[in-house]
Amino acid sequence: MRFDVLTLFPEMFQGFLNTSIIKKAYEKGLVETSVINFRDFSTDKHRTVDDTPYGGGGGMVLKPEPIFEAVDYLVQDLPVRPPVLLMSPQGEPFTQQKAEELARYSHLIILCGHYEGYDERIREHVATEEISIGDYVLTGGELPAMVVIDSVSRLIPGVLGNENSATLDSFSSGLLEYPQYTRPAEYRGYRVPDVLLSGHHLRIEQWRRRQALRRTWERRPDLLQTAPLTEEDRAYLRELERDFDRDE
Amino acid sequence: MRFDVLTLFPEMFQGFLNTSIIKKAYEKGLVETSVINFRDFSTDKHRTVDDTPYGGGGGMVLKPEPIFEAVDYLVQDLPVRPPVLLMSPQGEPFTQQKAEELARYSHLIILCGHYEGYDERIREHVATEEISIGDYVLTGGELPAMVVIDSVSRLIPGVLGNENSATLDSFSSGLLEYPQYTRPAEYRGYRVPDVLLSGHHLRIEQWRRRQALRRTWERRPDLLQTAPLTEEDRAYLRELERDFDRDE
Repeated sequence: MRFDVLTLFPEMFQGFLNTSIIKKAYEKGLVETSVINFRDFSTDKHRTVDDTPYGGGGGMVLKPEPIFEAVDYLVQDLPVRPPVLLMSPQGEPFTQQKAEELARYSHLIILCGHYEGYDERIREHVATEEISIGDYVLTGGELPAMVVIDSVSRLIPGVLGNENSATLDSFSSGLLEYPQYTRPAEYRGYRVPDVLLSGHHLRIEQWRRRQALRRTWERRPDLLQTAPLTEEDRAYLRELERDFDRDE
Repeated sequence: MRFDVLTLFPEMFQGFLNTSIIKKAYEKGLVETSVINFRDFSTDKHRTVDDTPYGGGGGMVLKPEPIFEAVDYLVQDLPVRPPVLLMSPQGEPFTQQKAEELARYSHLIILCGHYEGYDERIREHVATEEISIGDYVLTGGELPAMVVIDSVSRLIPGVLGNENSATLDSFSSGLLEYPQYTRPAEYRGYRVPDVLLSGHHLRIEQWRRRQALRRTWERRPDLLQTAPLTEEDRAYLRELERDFDRDE
């Protein structure tokens, strides 16, 4: 997988690209990231990348030329134009499903701007999609680009060791995760639940499933509408509802 | 505002802390961030921070001791214990409102772990809240921590210049933003809408409001349920609905 990132702050990616799985994925030849300053594609001697908005108002707007030119440069010899993702709070909310969809491509171009505005022509004629990582305001699209690169990279076969890939399975249950415990069995007076020390696999499995259901029901009931549930799961959720109604 | 970040990958924060508004906020004395490797608080000679889960299953679980000890160390001389945020996909979804709430504190501690699991006792007895930046799986809590630091920092008075603070106002309208354009008025045959070149402020204002309403209606109708709307806004939305029904 190749990621080309267009940004005015390439140095922001340094720590991210040199750490952890992204570094390992690069060393294994599975992921390659190039970070390009699109200021290098500005066409005037002041290397201008933004200007005031037509129609007035505060903030600056990213000019079309440098970004059109930079993307032209990146795609010039390619047989197929890769998706061009524009990071923006106006975009489609990013989800695990979207990460899976993007992981099927071999090349992605990611545009990071200042959130105060891209010239609309960049949206309409350069970007193929707009992605938002959440309903909050950030200084720029750089952290969102790293979020996309991280979540997509870990879905590429070979990037994660076997040990870690279990995580994906557990998230793809559609529920929040059950509580985990490790040694020591008692710490500062806080004990690990007996069932986990019992060695009784069936009971452990049932306890974990119910904890995952309960946590999802308490914190993110919206997820229960799409999670695949068994008859037993539904019976347990009805039980939770009943206990809750009784306590009210 | 002080941010203390606990992580196993302090180097990942390098580029982020040395760029853009975070760097400027630090230079102005408004934001201070310290990034601490909690491996330094492990209590055995192998500097162990994780272990296999009780009850079996894949993945590793972060042990309680190093994190309990690190937080004890950070809060030891403080009159009031600051909020301790645990970054986790199990957490409360992060929003602009949450960023505003966190910006009222003078000190936040942020725990970043591997997403495969924290020992539950860390959740229950160290963290005061759990925060998720979105429904996707990441390698760790480091990028989420940076997202929180970035979005909270920009809300601290003095961090943003006047020029940029307009962004906040526009987001806080509860709608997606209207399209922005800057020079040139025509680029590669794509023209800026005439109204924006008209100099007619009232018409520009109305056009922008309607564009913001239309975009929100098209892409994120969920936001319309909470956005403050005028009678005129509602009339325009009814018009959009009617046109849509007719086209169906």
